[in-house]
Amino acid sequence: MLGKFLPESGQPGAGIFPLRNPDVGECQPGDPEEWFALRYDLTASLARVCAQYAHELPKPFRRYQVGTVWRHEKPGLGRLRAFTQFDVDSVGVHGLIADAEVCALACDIFEALEIPRGDYQIRVNNRKVLAGVLVAAGLDPGSLADTSSQTGAVLRAIDKLDRIGLEGATELLGKGRRDESGDYTKGACLDPKQIEQVVSFLRVPRGERLSVCEALDRLVGHTDIGKVGIDELREIDRHLGAIGRDSEDVAFDATVVRGLGYYTGPVFEGVLTKQFCDESGRPRSFGSLFGGGRYDELVERFSGEKVRAVGGSIGIDRLLEALKLFEPEVPSSAAQVLVAVVERERISWYLGVTRTLRSAGINTEIYSGDGNLRAQLKYAAKLGIPFVLIAGGRELDRDVVQVKQLVYSARNGTLAQASHAEQPTQWEAPISRVVPALHERLAPSRESVGVWSCARTGGTNQA
Amino acid sequence: MLGKFLPESGQPGAGIFPLRNPDVGECQPGDPEEWFALRYDLTASLARVCAQYAHELPKPFRRYQVGTVWRHEKPGLGRLRAFTQFDVDSVGVHGLIADAEVCALACDIFEALEIPRGDYQIRVNNRKVLAGVLVAAGLDPGSLADTSSQTGAVLRAIDKLDRIGLEGATELLGKGRRDESGDYTKGACLDPKQIEQVVSFLRVPRGERLSVCEALDRLVGHTDIGKVGIDELREIDRHLGAIGRDSEDVAFDATVVRGLGYYTGPVFEGVLTKQFCDESGRPRSFGSLFGGGRYDELVERFSGEKVRAVGGSIGIDRLLEALKLFEPEVPSSAAQVLVAVVERERISWYLGVTRTLRSAGINTEIYSGDGNLRAQLKYAAKLGIPFVLIAGGRELDRDVVQVKQLVYSARNGTLAQASHAEQPTQWEAPISRVVPALHERLAPSRESVGVWSCARTGGTNQA
Repeated sequence: MLGKFLPESGQPGAGIFPLRNPDVGECQPGDPEEWFALRYDLTASLARVCAQYAHELPKPFRRYQVGTVWRHEKPGLGRLRAFTQFDVDSVGVHGLIADAEVCALACDIFEALEIPRGDYQIRVNNRKVLAGVLVAAGLDPGSLADTSSQTGAVLRAIDKLDRIGLEGATELLGKGRRDESGDYTKGACLDPKQIEQVVSFLRVPRGERLSVCEALDRLVGHTDIGKVGIDELREIDRHLGAIGRDSEDVAFDATVVRGLGYYTGPVFEGVLTKQFCDESGRPRSFGSLFGGGRYDELVERFSGEKVRAVGGSIGIDRLLEALKLFEPEVPSSAAQVLVAVVERERISWYLGVTRTLRSAGINTEIYSGDGNLRAQLKYAAKLGIPFVLIAGGRELDRDVVQVKQLVYSARNGTLAQASHAEQPTQWEAPISRVVPALHERLAPSRESVGVWSCARTGGTNQA
Repeated sequence: MLGKFLPESGQPGAGIFPLRNPDVGECQPGDPEEWFALRYDLTASLARVCAQYAHELPKPFRRYQVGTVWRHEKPGLGRLRAFTQFDVDSVGVHGLIADAEVCALACDIFEALEIPRGDYQIRVNNRKVLAGVLVAAGLDPGSLADTSSQTGAVLRAIDKLDRIGLEGATELLGKGRRDESGDYTKGACLDPKQIEQVVSFLRVPRGERLSVCEALDRLVGHTDIGKVGIDELREIDRHLGAIGRDSEDVAFDATVVRGLGYYTGPVFEGVLTKQFCDESGRPRSFGSLFGGGRYDELVERFSGEKVRAVGGSIGIDRLLEALKLFEPEVPSSAAQVLVAVVERERISWYLGVTRTLRSAGINTEIYSGDGNLRAQLKYAAKLGIPFVLIAGGRELDRDVVQVKQLVYSARNGTLAQASHAEQPTQWEAPISRVVPALHERLAPSRESVGVWSCARTGGTNQA
C-alpha cells in the first residue's frame, strides 16, 4: 500500500527501506506478502488500524503517537534517515474544527518550547484550491494524488517556489530547469497561457487569511473545486479566530503543497520565520518543522469506507536542532542531588542517604563510577546536577554533611563551583536537616528541572 | 556484531529480521556493509555508542531509553515480534552499586504500578557462579558466551528448569529430551557424575540471599571463578540491604541464566509471583517482566577498551498485559472535560469556552465528530472523560451551562450517567463560574487522570 502515497511514486521503492518477509520462503515475485518496508510515516498505519478496528474505536478517533520512521534519502542537516516523529490525528471528524485545532496545536507546541510568537508561522493551503488552479489551466485535477502525472509535476514546481524562486518555478512549469549543480529536472510542459495562470496564483502574497481568500477567489473561485477549497479555508479562518490564533500565527499561503500523495483538502506546514545564520554568515534553513493535512480518502483505501481525517506531524530531531538556535544548550539532569562516594567503606551510608532523599521526593543519584571527589564534582557539573552532597568520616563523626551548589558558567558551558563570596555555594548541614535544607533551595523549581532555571538566572536556583 | 550475542548463535540470523543495505549495489557475499538488522535490543547499540563516543560521554554514563525492538520468533501471549522496550544502563561503573540499583529500580517500578510487594520478585544470580558449576563439573567455562558449545547446552538446560522441572532439565543435561509435542532437543551429553553436580546446584532453593550464598559456597566456593561470583552476590546483598530491599523483594536464585550471550556477571530477572488463571482455570504465566545483568566485555568488542557496565530492560507490552490481571481496565482519558457541540452554529462559542478551560489548566476536548448529544455523551463515556459541558441556546441565553458528570459503571465497564439522587451528577453553572466549579470538582485528582480515581472510589471524584 505504501508506495502509492510516496512523493516520488514514479520510482517505486524510492524513499523506503524494503525488508524481505523472513517467513516467506519461496514466493513468487510480486507476492504481496513478500516484502515489508520500514515505517515511512505514522499516518498510513493509523489509517490501516482505523479501517481494521472501525467498529471498536471511538468515533471520532483522536490519538497522538511518537515513533521512529525511516526515509531512504540523502541525509542532511536535521534530515536523518531514521528519525522520531510526533504525530497527531483525528479520524472520523465533521467540519473543519479538527483542522483548525491541529494548526493551533502546532502553535501551542512551538510556544511551549519558548519559540516566541512571530518567530514561527503555520502556513495553510488547500489541495482543492490547487486543484482549482489546475482546472483553471485546463489540466486534470483528478490525478492530484498521482504524483507521477503532469499534475504532479505542476505541484512539485509550486512546492519548490521557496527554494528556487518564481523564475525557477516558471521553468519547471515549462520545459524544465537546470540547477546550479548542472542537474536537469524535466518540467510540467505547460503552454505559456497555462504557465501564466499558475504564476499569477503563485504571486498571491502569503499572509492575512481573508485577503488570501479574496485573491484566490478572483483566480480560482469560478471553478467548482476551487470554490469549495476557498470556503473551507474561510471556515478554518473562523475557527482559528475563535481559538485565538490570528494571521501572524497561522497564515494562508497559496504555495503550500506538501509532498505526500494522500492529502485531499487543507494542508499545513510550520516554519521558523526568524532568520539564523551559520558560522560563515549564510542563512540557515531548516525546512518545515511541522506538516500535515486532510486525508479523507486514506482509510477508504484499506476498508472501502469513507472516513474524514486530518492530522499533523513534527520531526522531533529537526525540532531539537532548531531549538538550539534559540537557546544555548545547558547541561541539565533530572537528578537534583549527587551523593558523592568519598570513602568507599561508607558505601552503605551513602546508599542510605540516597534512599532518604529519594523518599523525600528529591531526585538523587549516587555516584557509581571510580573517580575521586574532584572527578565526581566534574561529573555533576557535566550532567547539570546542581547539588553535591559530600560526607567523609570528618563530617559523619560530627553528624553533619557538606552540600556544594554548582552554578552555571557561561564561560565553559557547564556547571562549575562558584567562587564569589557574596553567594555561599557550600555549606554544612546537620544530617537531620539535610532534607529540609535541600527542599528549601530546590522548592521554587522542584517541578521543573532544577538546573535549567538555575542556569537562566545566572547562579541561583530561586527563579 | 549482532549475531554473536543472540541466544541461539548456532543458527546465524535466527531471531533477527535482516535487512539488505539498499545503498550497496553489487557487493560480495559477506561484505559487512551488505546486511543490516532491525534492532534486537537497546543494549548492543548503547555499547556501540559508548565505544564510539567514549571521550565525550560523562563517566559513568547512565541513561534510560524507550524504543521498539524486533524479534523474529514465534509470537504468543505478551510475546510480540515488535515490542517496546524500556532499558536502563550504567556504563563505566565501579563496584556493584549499579547492579543493586538496577534491581531496586525494578522493584520501584513494579510498586509504582501498584503491583504490591510479595506479588513480584526480582531474582538474581551470577554468571560467575554458573561458571563455577561448570568448572566443578570439569567443563570449560571460558566459552560461557559461546552459546553453541556444550556449556551453552548446560546453561539452556538450567534456564528451562522452571518450565520443564528437574527431571526435564536432567534429561537435557544428559542425552536429550523429547517434549509433549514430540520435538526432540539434543542434550549437553554430560556424564552421570557431572549431571549430579549440576543437579545438586539446581536443588539450591531460591530465596533468602545469604542462605543461597552459603549453599552456593559449599557447591562452587572451591572454584576461583565461583568464589568471585559468590563474593559479588554478597556485595549486592549488602547494597540492597542499605537501599532497603530484603530477600522478599530481591531474592537470589541459582537457576537464573538469562539467554543473551553478553552477560559476564550478575544477572537478574523479575517475575510475578502472584498466581493468575485464565478463563479455563489454567495457571497463566508471563515469563519474566524484567531482565538484565552485567556485560563487562560488550563495549570492548567495539572499542577494545575494557568498560564495566550493567543494565536491565522491561518489555512494556508484556508488562501492560500483566497489569490487566491486577486491575480491570477502566477507560481513562487525559481529557477532563468534553465540550459538547450542541448547536453547530454556535461552534465559535464552543471553541472559545474550550480555549478558556484550557487556559485555566483544565484538559479539555471539543467534540469533533458528527454525532448528536447522545452520541457525544457515549463518546465521553467510552473515552473516560468525566465531565461534559453542555450548552445550547436555552442555556446560553441565560448565561449558564449544564455540566454533566459521568461515573464509572462496573456493569458495562465504561463511564455512564449516574441516576441516584443523593449524588447530583448534572448541575447548572453560570458561565462565569464554570472554571472554579470544575476546578473544585477536579482538584483532588488534578495531578493524576481524574477518572481513574473516580472509578476506584465507585463514583465520586474526591479520592
